Amino acid sequence: MSGRTARRRVLRITLPGGKQPADGDPDSRPGRDGSGGTKSRADFLAAEEPLGIRVDGTALTLTMRTPGDDTELAAGFLVSEAIAHSPADIAGIKLCDGTSCGHGDHHGMGNIADVTLAPGITATPGARRNFMTTSACGVCGKASIEDICILPDQALAADPARFAPTALATLPDRLRDAQRVFSRTGGLHAAGLFAADGELLIVREDVGRHNAVDKVVGWALLNDRLPLAGCILLVSGRASFELVQKAVLAGIPLLAAVSAPSSLAVDLAEEAGLTLVGFLRGPSMNVYTGAHRISA
Amino acid sequence: MSGRTARRRVLRITLPGGKQPADGDPDSRPGRDGSGGTKSRADFLAAEEPLGIRVDGTALTLTMRTPGDDTELAAGFLVSEAIAHSPADIAGIKLCDGTSCGHGDHHGMGNIADVTLAPGITATPGARRNFMTTSACGVCGKASIEDICILPDQALAADPARFAPTALATLPDRLRDAQRVFSRTGGLHAAGLFAADGELLIVREDVGRHNAVDKVVGWALLNDRLPLAGCILLVSGRASFELVQKAVLAGIPLLAAVSAPSSLAVDLAEEAGLTLVGFLRGPSMNVYTGAHRISA
Repeated sequence: MSGRTARRRVLRITLPGGKQPADGDPDSRPGRDGSGGTKSRADFLAAEEPLGIRVDGTALTLTMRTPGDDTELAAGFLVSEAIAHSPADIAGIKLCDGTSCGHGDHHGMGNIADVTLAPGITATPGARRNFMTTSACGVCGKASIEDICILPDQALAADPARFAPTALATLPDRLRDAQRVFSRTGGLHAAGLFAADGELLIVREDVGRHNAVDKVVGWALLNDRLPLAGCILLVSGRASFELVQKAVLAGIPLLAAVSAPSSLAVDLAEEAGLTLVGFLRGPSMNVYTGAHRISA
Repeated sequence: MSGRTARRRVLRITLPGGKQPADGDPDSRPGRDGSGGTKSRADFLAAEEPLGIRVDGTALTLTMRTPGDDTELAAGFLVSEAIAHSPADIAGIKLCDGTSCGHGDHHGMGNIADVTLAPGITATPGARRNFMTTSACGVCGKASIEDICILPDQALAADPARFAPTALATLPDRLRDAQRVFSRTGGLHAAGLFAADGELLIVREDVGRHNAVDKVVGWALLNDRLPLAGCILLVSGRASFELVQKAVLAGIPLLAAVSAPSSLAVDLAEEAGLTLVGFLRGPSMNVYTGAHRISA
């Protein structure tokens, strides 16, 4: 496995009158006096490399991810595809990082996670993948939410958890404090799992926000914590349809995002009984669905 | 085709002492006096819906996108997959939006773009898709950049364009001014294409940053402007491997991002002869590759 950050040369240009460099780029300070400047230096970047996930010998997906926690990433992906629901569903996950098989000269890229499922568990592709062939309308491909997403058998709506806005308000700062790589590179999405009282359980970072969430969910699967009843998942960016689906399949009753949700994210959250909070920025937040779980 | 934004009810919570709401959420002003408040109101969200792209009758991909410019999105996707290089490669693109075929009752989702290629043009899937089967090392899947990406026959390195930092510095504000939907929803990525002197040629927005870029590139293909020699592509977020590849295949010599690039984005840009600028925020910027094109 390669590192989570990579060093590259960068030419930093600041025009006359330029202000302080942005967050995530704290080492560069030319132009502080307003005179402008150009400086060549080494910079830390978020590492991005492909990870192939094979299940029982068949290639299932290739994702561009930040190396690290790859076993969790593969496990979480299986949860998000509704293939695995408990640790017993997975017989083993073997990582090949190029070193172990003596091929370390391919740019350090192309890792593979080789998953063996337990007897009786099969890797049926998620419903979404079949969208265009299973669509109700063969002419136009029109589909309902049920056709493009995977919903678990057990409804989230039954989760009796309640969350206080005062606890939610503390989460963005806690997530930020826990992000080790972001502060260096400015280039990673983060996903943090919290208990209802705001205690941080785990944080994962990745160049892909869906990967960061899969790593969190995979950690939960491998530690036999699914479904994640009573928990909060906070993501550093926006809330898409895909992230809502991952939260629902992991049994998480509350998904919070620092930025905006999409229309389909809200629609799926409503249908699945998920509480969806957006624009969570300290003391203010928008509750889009499941507001009954938010108690003052 | 459905709208680019969708209205949903939202419960806006502001705790006592809460500050002004964040950018992108200008209509909500409870708690301005620091007393806190809860308010239910209608909110505009970025629309997210699936678009299936079929080529000569075969389903090629399903992307979650913001409706609008779907013909361009399909065309740009074909460029990014190295299937189409000029308008003549595409015989036609037909959109079915559910209305035209009398099936308007499926949640307004599931649009299809039906592409017919010109005789002699075939939809060979991109090299990336075959990564795990074509990889040089059958044991570990290790691959070089050449194995996971598509590089055009003609090197970008030959593009003699030069760009002034003073012109680049103006681009983020121009892009922001041109974003019509973001200011309403706070939920969209933007991609803007500029001439070397900073003139904005086209801007496209989407919940997916790769879609925003595909829409720009598709616009260029359909208007017979490929390759986009001498042009600048600016993206509102981070620069990933995938976005670099799209820029390279469209013949764009300079890709600029408001945030950080990944390691693989820098590596591919270096190999392809693309000038890659990150953290472009007004008067300051980082040049990661192709610095010879930046002239003071």
